[in-house]
Formats: sequence, structure tokens, C-alpha cells
Amino acid sequence: MTEKRPFDVLNNALNNTVVIGLKGGVTFRGILAAYDVHMNLVLEKTELLENDEVKKGIGTCLLRGDSVVYISPS
Amino acid sequence: MTEKRPFDVLNNALNNTVVIGLKGGVTFRGILAAYDVHMNLVLEKTELLENDEVKKGIGTCLLRGDSVVYISPS
Amino acid sequence: MTEKRPFDVLNNALNNTVVIGLKGGVTFRGILAAYDVHMNLVLEKTELLENDEVKKGIGTCLLRGDSVVYISPS
Amino acid sequence: MTEKRPFDVLNNALNNTVVIGLKGGVTFRGILAAYDVHMNLVLEKTELLENDEVKKGIGTCLLRGDSVVYISPS
Amino acid sequence: MTEKRPFDVLNNALNNTVVIGLKGGVTFRGILAAYDVHMNLVLEKTELLENDEVKKGIGTCLLRGDSVVYISPS
Amino acid sequence: MTEKRPFDVLNNALNNTVVIGLKGGVTFRGILAAYDVHMNLVLEKTELLENDEVKKGIGTCLLRGDSVVYISPS
Amino acid sequence: MTEKRPFDVLNNALNNTVVIGLKGGVTFRGILAAYDVHMNLVLEKTELLENDEVKKGIGTCLLRGDSVVYISPS
Repeated sequence: MTEKRPFDVLNNALNNTVVIGLKGGVTFRGILAAYDVHMNLVLEKTELLENDEVKKGIGTCLLRGDSVVYISPS
Repeated sequence: MTEKRPFDVLNNALNNTVVIGLKGGVTFRGILAAYDVHMNLVLEKTELLENDEVKKGIGTCLLRGDSVVYISPS
Repeated sequence: MTEKRPFDVLNNALNNTVVIGLKGGVTFRGILAAYDVHMNLVLEKTELLENDEVKKGIGTCLLRGDSVVYISPS
Repeated sequence: MTEKRPFDVLNNALNNTVVIGLKGGVTFRGILAAYDVHMNLVLEKTELLENDEVKKGIGTCLLRGDSVVYISPS
Repeated sequence: MTEKRPFDVLNNALNNTVVIGLKGGVTFRGILAAYDVHMNLVLEKTELLENDEVKKGIGTCLLRGDSVVYISPS
Repeated sequence: MTEKRPFDVLNNALNNTVVIGLKGGVTFRGILAAYDVHMNLVLEKTELLENDEVKKGIGTCLLRGDSVVYISPS
Repeated sequence: MTEKRPFDVLNNALNNTVVIGLKGGVTFRGILAAYDVHMNLVLEKTELLENDEVKKGIGTCLLRGDSVVYISPS
């Protein structure tokens, strides 16, 4: 449970469900399939959330790191 | 289905339809014809979407990477 | 029709009419006269558009690359 | 109490509760588990606050440094 | 009339009147006295415009390049 | 009273009260305990101000430099 | 009157009154005491302006360059 470096959170979350908060208030939920040093992320089975409810499914999704505010493993 | 690196999503999506979410909430859909390391993208047969409906067609389109929020192969 | 790199779109569009979408929702249309690696663009016979209608003509115009969202050859 | 360098605040706050103010006015509270030179932060037992009240719990959370406005140890 | 590089527009406009559109929708008009590679600009006899009308005169003015959206020689 | 370089203001203000204006219009007041070349700042006895009135106290606070608009020693 | 480089405006304005327009529409007026290559500025006898009227005096003030839109010597 003690993460030594921020990117350990990403590594530990691979193949697990994560919630991603983006600038502008949009939230995605999906299975983390890949990431890189820019925090670009690939999600599978991605859902776009609004007020914690699923608004629509968008399958595989590449999220650009500089739009990311937070990443939370569920 | 397991992407090793985020840009693999782009490479696998070449010549296929993708949906692109941009900062400010605008959404484009088109056939991915090219990309580079800045996530600059070229779409063919591009459509501008609003609430998932086609607002207008704009043919070939070069999208600047730093406006991109997400890219989703359909 | 198959662009290999995003900047090929710019090179192919030289001396032709392009539509430029900017951050903030402003749209310009003009003849592409020059560009550089930052996507700074020069348009000739530039028109400022609003809802696809010409709002005013502004002749030659240098557009700063970091304001550009998309570029579409017409 | 006399901090010599700004990052000393982060180092001293490890394993303690901090409040994080983000761009856009969102506030998180949690136990600081990790940070790096970009001010990327890992919080444990994270709570999303609104007007100083807990809106929801989101467990472990990686916050991207460039969204951070302030960090305050409690 | 055929510009080879975007900065040629600036060079050709020296000592002539230009209109500058800034982020946020503000528009300046003045005589271009200097520029640098960051598109920092110096205008003389600068006027602040609103809806194409002069709102006030502000004499010499240094404009920071990263606020510039477009530059149009008149 | 004649500062030779902007960062002299920060150095002279160490251990004194400063008012910090941030992007988005938020204002903090506190005792400047540390700063670095990115203008990351540490305040002690920090107060969040609204219309020049104290809204709440938040003790020690690390402010990220890229959110800072101005710093004024009192 | 002919400035050769944008920063000459700053150098010529040292110890004179300048008006500074910032992102977000805030305007400061004060005596320019120092500047650096990032356009970080130090003003003395600074006044915060609103619609060209003095809203309040804030004495010495360090303005972060990346918030600056324009600088106008008076």
C-alpha cells in the first residue's frame, strides 16, 4: 500500500479498473491497458461518466496525459 | 487487445474510423490517415459531431495534438 | 489521398483554400501561403467566419500555431 | 518550522494528511504517500471536498502535478 | 505577395499598421516597430479596439507573443 | 528600494508577510518561508482572502509557481 | 522612438510608469523597477486598476511574466 513513486500507482493498476478525472470535469472509467511517461493512458471497455453514472461506452480509448487531473484505481 | 504502449492504439487504428474528443468539448469522427509523436492527426472523411449527431462534413482534416483529449477507435 | 505525415496536409494545401479552426471557436478561411514547424500559418484573402458565414475580410494574416485546433483543405 | 526549499514541505508531509487545491477549484484531502519533482502526488484514503465538506471518497489517487495550485499539510 | 515563411509577414509589416488579435478576444491596432522569435511585438500609436471601434489609445505597447492569435497587416 | 532583479523581491520578503494573487482570482496572505526558481512558494500562517477579507486559515502552504500571478510584500 | 527589439521597451521604461495588462483582464500601473528574460516584472507604487480607475494600491509587486499580455509605458 505504500507507493514509493507516483508512477507505481499506474504500474500497479495495469489490467485493473481505474477512474480518470480530466480537465473540464469529464470522468472516464475503464481497464488500464497501457501508459507512458507523459501519462498518456490506454483504457479498455471505457465508459464516460457523468455524476457517477455511465453516460456512454466508448470501448478502447487513448487519453492524452496533459488532460489528466487524477487517476484512481478502484 | 493488449496494447503495450499508448501509441500502439494509433498505429492499430490507421485506416480505420476513430472518434476524437478535443478540448472545449468538440468531437470529430473520421478515418485516421496519419499521426506523429505530438499526436497531430490526419483524418479523412471527417465529420464534426454534436451530441453524437453529425453537424457537418469537413473532408480531410489536420488536428493539432495539443487540442486532443482522447482518441477512440470505433 | 494517403498522407504519410500530418505536415503533408499542409504542404499539399499550399496555394489552396483552407479552413482553420482556432481555440475559442473562431474560424478563418483563406489561401495557405506559408507554414512552419510550429504550425504558424500565413493565409491570403483571409475571411473571418461565424456560423459558416463570412463576418469580415482581413486580407493577409499570420496565425500563431499554438492557437490552431484544426486545418481543413477545402 | 523554517522550510529551506519548497519541496521540503512535501517531504515533511509524507504519511500525513494534506489538503490539495487544484485548478478549477476542486479540493482533495488524503494521506500523502508519494511525490516526484513534477509535483505528481499520490494520496491514500482520498476524499473529494466541496465547500470543506466531504463529497465522496476515492481511495488511492494519483494527482498530476500541473493541476496542483496549492498543497497544505493539516 | 507570396510569403515563404510565416515570419516574413512580420518583417514586411515593419513600420506599417497591423491589427493584432489576442487570446480572450481583445484586438490592438498600431504600427509594428519590432518583433522577436517568440512573436513578442512592439506597436507604436497603439489603439485598443472593440467591435472594430477604437476604445482607447495606449501609445507604445509591448505585446507578449504567447497571447497573440493572429497578426494582420492592413 | 531599487530591485535589480525580480527574484530580489522574493529574497527581501523572506520571513515577512506577502500577498499572493493566483490565476482564477484567489488571493493568499502569509509569511514567506521559502521559494525556488520556478516561483514555487512556501507560506506560513496562510490565510485565504476574498475581497480583502480572511475567508479561512490554512497554516503552512506550498503554492505552485505556475499558478502565481503576482507577489506583493506588505 | 524606433525600438529595435521588444525588450528595449522594457529597458527604456525602467524607473518610469507603465501599465500592465494581465490575462483575465486585470490591469496594474506602477513604476518599473526590474525585469528579466521571462518578462517577470517588478513594479513600485503599484495600483490595481479597474475600468481605468484605481481600485487599490499594493506597493511593491512582482508580476510573473507568463501572466502578462501587454506592457505600455505611459
